[in-house]
Amino acid sequence: MVRIAVLGAGRIGRIHARNVAENPAATLVAVADPFGTAAADLAAQLSSEAALDPVKTIEREDVDAVVIGTPTDTHVDLLLHAVRHGKAVLCEKPIDLALARVDAAVAEIARLNGRVMLAFNRRFDPSVRELRRAIDAGDIGEVRQVVITSRDPGLPPEGYLRSSGGIFRDMTIHDLDMARWLLGEEPVEVSAIGGRLVDPELMSAVDDYDTVMVQLRTASGRQCHINNCREAVYGYDQRLEIFGSTGAVFNENLRPTTVRRWTRDATDVRQPLLNFFLERYADAYRAEMDAFIDAIAENAPLPVTPHDGRQALLLADKALESLLAGKTVAV
Amino acid sequence: MVRIAVLGAGRIGRIHARNVAENPAATLVAVADPFGTAAADLAAQLSSEAALDPVKTIEREDVDAVVIGTPTDTHVDLLLHAVRHGKAVLCEKPIDLALARVDAAVAEIARLNGRVMLAFNRRFDPSVRELRRAIDAGDIGEVRQVVITSRDPGLPPEGYLRSSGGIFRDMTIHDLDMARWLLGEEPVEVSAIGGRLVDPELMSAVDDYDTVMVQLRTASGRQCHINNCREAVYGYDQRLEIFGSTGAVFNENLRPTTVRRWTRDATDVRQPLLNFFLERYADAYRAEMDAFIDAIAENAPLPVTPHDGRQALLLADKALESLLAGKTVAV
Amino acid sequence: MVRIAVLGAGRIGRIHARNVAENPAATLVAVADPFGTAAADLAAQLSSEAALDPVKTIEREDVDAVVIGTPTDTHVDLLLHAVRHGKAVLCEKPIDLALARVDAAVAEIARLNGRVMLAFNRRFDPSVRELRRAIDAGDIGEVRQVVITSRDPGLPPEGYLRSSGGIFRDMTIHDLDMARWLLGEEPVEVSAIGGRLVDPELMSAVDDYDTVMVQLRTASGRQCHINNCREAVYGYDQRLEIFGSTGAVFNENLRPTTVRRWTRDATDVRQPLLNFFLERYADAYRAEMDAFIDAIAENAPLPVTPHDGRQALLLADKALESLLAGKTVAV
Amino acid sequence: MVRIAVLGAGRIGRIHARNVAENPAATLVAVADPFGTAAADLAAQLSSEAALDPVKTIEREDVDAVVIGTPTDTHVDLLLHAVRHGKAVLCEKPIDLALARVDAAVAEIARLNGRVMLAFNRRFDPSVRELRRAIDAGDIGEVRQVVITSRDPGLPPEGYLRSSGGIFRDMTIHDLDMARWLLGEEPVEVSAIGGRLVDPELMSAVDDYDTVMVQLRTASGRQCHINNCREAVYGYDQRLEIFGSTGAVFNENLRPTTVRRWTRDATDVRQPLLNFFLERYADAYRAEMDAFIDAIAENAPLPVTPHDGRQALLLADKALESLLAGKTVAV
Repeated sequence: MVRIAVLGAGRIGRIHARNVAENPAATLVAVADPFGTAAADLAAQLSSEAALDPVKTIEREDVDAVVIGTPTDTHVDLLLHAVRHGKAVLCEKPIDLALARVDAAVAEIARLNGRVMLAFNRRFDPSVRELRRAIDAGDIGEVRQVVITSRDPGLPPEGYLRSSGGIFRDMTIHDLDMARWLLGEEPVEVSAIGGRLVDPELMSAVDDYDTVMVQLRTASGRQCHINNCREAVYGYDQRLEIFGSTGAVFNENLRPTTVRRWTRDATDVRQPLLNFFLERYADAYRAEMDAFIDAIAENAPLPVTPHDGRQALLLADKALESLLAGKTVAV
Repeated sequence: MVRIAVLGAGRIGRIHARNVAENPAATLVAVADPFGTAAADLAAQLSSEAALDPVKTIEREDVDAVVIGTPTDTHVDLLLHAVRHGKAVLCEKPIDLALARVDAAVAEIARLNGRVMLAFNRRFDPSVRELRRAIDAGDIGEVRQVVITSRDPGLPPEGYLRSSGGIFRDMTIHDLDMARWLLGEEPVEVSAIGGRLVDPELMSAVDDYDTVMVQLRTASGRQCHINNCREAVYGYDQRLEIFGSTGAVFNENLRPTTVRRWTRDATDVRQPLLNFFLERYADAYRAEMDAFIDAIAENAPLPVTPHDGRQALLLADKALESLLAGKTVAV
Repeated sequence: MVRIAVLGAGRIGRIHARNVAENPAATLVAVADPFGTAAADLAAQLSSEAALDPVKTIEREDVDAVVIGTPTDTHVDLLLHAVRHGKAVLCEKPIDLALARVDAAVAEIARLNGRVMLAFNRRFDPSVRELRRAIDAGDIGEVRQVVITSRDPGLPPEGYLRSSGGIFRDMTIHDLDMARWLLGEEPVEVSAIGGRLVDPELMSAVDDYDTVMVQLRTASGRQCHINNCREAVYGYDQRLEIFGSTGAVFNENLRPTTVRRWTRDATDVRQPLLNFFLERYADAYRAEMDAFIDAIAENAPLPVTPHDGRQALLLADKALESLLAGKTVAV
Repeated sequence: MVRIAVLGAGRIGRIHARNVAENPAATLVAVADPFGTAAADLAAQLSSEAALDPVKTIEREDVDAVVIGTPTDTHVDLLLHAVRHGKAVLCEKPIDLALARVDAAVAEIARLNGRVMLAFNRRFDPSVRELRRAIDAGDIGEVRQVVITSRDPGLPPEGYLRSSGGIFRDMTIHDLDMARWLLGEEPVEVSAIGGRLVDPELMSAVDDYDTVMVQLRTASGRQCHINNCREAVYGYDQRLEIFGSTGAVFNENLRPTTVRRWTRDATDVRQPLLNFFLERYADAYRAEMDAFIDAIAENAPLPVTPHDGRQALLLADKALESLLAGKTVAV
């Protein structure tokens, strides 16, 4: 039995806590959140203990591993505290918004032989895994181009935007991780363009962009395109296309069921897209947690590393640099 | 906590037992199966108790409800035994292959105010529920025609065929229940045709048909078509179409993920169909069990009745009569 | 150059005349229609001659072949007149509504070695031809079941209904021809059911049915299901499914383009179905005429025979008999 | 009757000549090609005259308009000769591979009030027109992002590559025209990346790239991504996606029919893509010619201008500059 505490009882913490509770090889020892009754409510639902202090929760003897789902600016401290106490960690992305701080944390984790997994949930989505399996199995030969579409259903609140680190570090970072994972080679060149098309006033106020495109090239010439928008009125749009020398594979958006409706107004209409990431990636979050628990139970390597978190952030920084300077940037 | 025992540790019993174990509002008290180590193996996996005697298991004081997944010819005895001991029952279809015996059992259950739910799992499939929801919500107006496709991936063994009661009672019975549930009216007329196209020799030997079509009409003139085949080389084919006065709804076969592959040989190829009913209807089995447990916990009416089981069997008998006599048969 | 006259300048005559005019191997010599300016208008558009008398038009020396698109009750007389004058004929279905009259006409055509092609346009639809090609090529092995969906977008006027011969002879007849062509064997048994669900009052007044299902069986046990409705609010619904021993093939409804629209209200919405038969089967009508012209030019056998017309009508009559008698009818 | 001569009897000339011949409002006066029997063969098929000298053919009194389908390096001379003789022109793209020469030609055409239409056939594809109609009708609000996929089925011969002007001027130029037409604003910034992934040796030899991505931005921040590859083993891949503020529209690849095949090996398999541009854009070529003929007959503005040809070439040049310099380039 892997004994796990979840730090943070917000929307992502709730998902992780439930997935721990439902995994037969793990026990949800505690949920810690300093704010209000969030931890208490969640713990009550899942027959677990509640705590207000994440730091003390990390230190509990009956805790083998912690899941960090707290605000981004607390990640590094909690992460390193856990590593120093010999606890395995599943840490939400990003490790931190500042690359220097991330670099320092990654180095410290390495020095301490810390066991830390970065929570890039999309790598665990069944359809994404099938894409990767197809690549690994040689089903499409050598990868040539990756096309990533990732559009959110609607603008987040201004407060969220102000602390998000900007669209590249907040939103594109997932796609940049996908790009690395699916290209099979590190990007060496980034160029990005952006616009303020959804809410120009708000975007100017927060000095950010709501609509962007990023282009990546690897040393051997493989290419990746990413498009993002903070608002797609038709829902959370998540699609991948991998084009290779002997074929291509695509995945599609998910919907509740396969039902199609035909009426006078429209034919062959499917149900709305699963909205938003908590629903769309529900299976991915579960599989991610199962992989984390399995790796701990079997003392096996963790499937996503702090280095992966660092590289995705680096690419996000380079994309912003490219956009601001109007030039292609080497990585 | 609803305390449940599962009778029968074959493939369907294993599904039910696991779904009981995963439902947070229920406890799997015991698994009973007189044959070999089936119950012991299953109970070990699910941290439950094993037993060899279903009858004694029913009688346990710490059992509130039983799930009957034993061979068909034991259903009536176990069912009535459970009802007489005040236990709620989820019983696999069919209640029995003989309509007279079913009628007697249904009457006895009614006399004793027994709480018995028939396990027509397809009613709980998310896409089927969405079809029914669309009908109930008036999305397609008045139902006019229902088209049901149900083809198995391959012939079962001869032994299974000999004890199955024939294709109509074994296979079509599910579709006949779907027809009743989706037409919204009782069929009053049945005509069926059949062929021995997959394995004529075997079918002659067991005096059965491997490929059939059934046509149903209700009093108001609504119509249903069912087609079945014991072998579809491309997999387990399960599709429904409801055509109404203001629209139509369809569901589709299920696949592991949304991934599509494009190669020199074929483009836009999806993954194979989920195969066979245990995979295709995994969500349905879970929802069925959850509905059973919820109804017991809340002392609410059970969502599928013994009468439903009786009516589907009656229609299956009428279909066989129609085929043999070469005529349309009134119900 | 094959010199052709088109008899009848109604909607079907206009289609045929245009297809003659656009075929480089044929000349549209004349269009004949006794009513008003229909022939004159059409002839003017297509740089042809207009006539009021179909009989005299048949007799013209510069006419090699005639296309009969006049009202059904004139078909036999015109057809036999043309045959007696040695003209090839493309005749719209049905030859006549009375089977006895059809039998007599077919016998007379045979006696005179007449060259007559029945206009079952669907056999020439590119997707239907591809289904048949797949069957002939052995792509799906031995045919087991054929499922035919054919629903019109809306009720025709009462006057049309009164002279139509009833739904089986007017609408199902196309599907019965498809059944024969795709089953690869003659049906030996028919059972039909029907309802008055679209407009019960009108249907009672004209003593017809607006919603029907037909089931066919061949001697070897192959099966076909047909469903028809006079009104599908979502458009002209034309689908075929052929299920065989090593696979299945389906076709789909046609739309103007492949464009799909995603909005807040609905995602992945395709354009409306091609509506009605003149649009849906535009390619089929053209290919049918090309096949007729090619066969005449090369003195080759005509691809659809009067016997095909007779058999489809026979099955339509049997379907009506089955519905009225409430029994399965042998053919 | 618009009297047209087609210059060039290669594969594109043959398409144009046939489309002229089939248009009832035009006459194909002559086909001119200096090489071998190409013109004679084509003219014979289409009941037209053959000529060896394009220049003299332009000068014929009975020619109102010419279609230029000769090698690229002859375009400017023939084009200007025709304009000087008062003939309308449909000219294949590109006008020339050298921007300076194109600029001079465009200026001369303007000075002479020449009537010249550039043959960007994709603008006339029915699905592309439907995308543009949706944009114009406001169906998707303000355009935000355009995603263009354009991959050829296989590498052209080395000779073709050497005289093609490179992938951007030869292949991407179509997509750059699409981008301008669908974005609704001129791109102001271009960045391109490329690789030699299909045949590195050949690409080095001809100093070209076989796999590229291009990113465009307009002044208001609208964005476009283009991906190209000289080889997609699954066929000619032509897809567009327009994402706007209130919705999105997509088109799909075309196939011969809607038929889908289900077998043991793969389910729901559609027919292969239409291959190559002559088949895929057959309808577009016809509609393009019809639009040219209509505009001449009605003395209306031609729907694609020499300026459009110049702008697409400019963007192609900028893309190459961006790729070579590794930077974003202003237009």
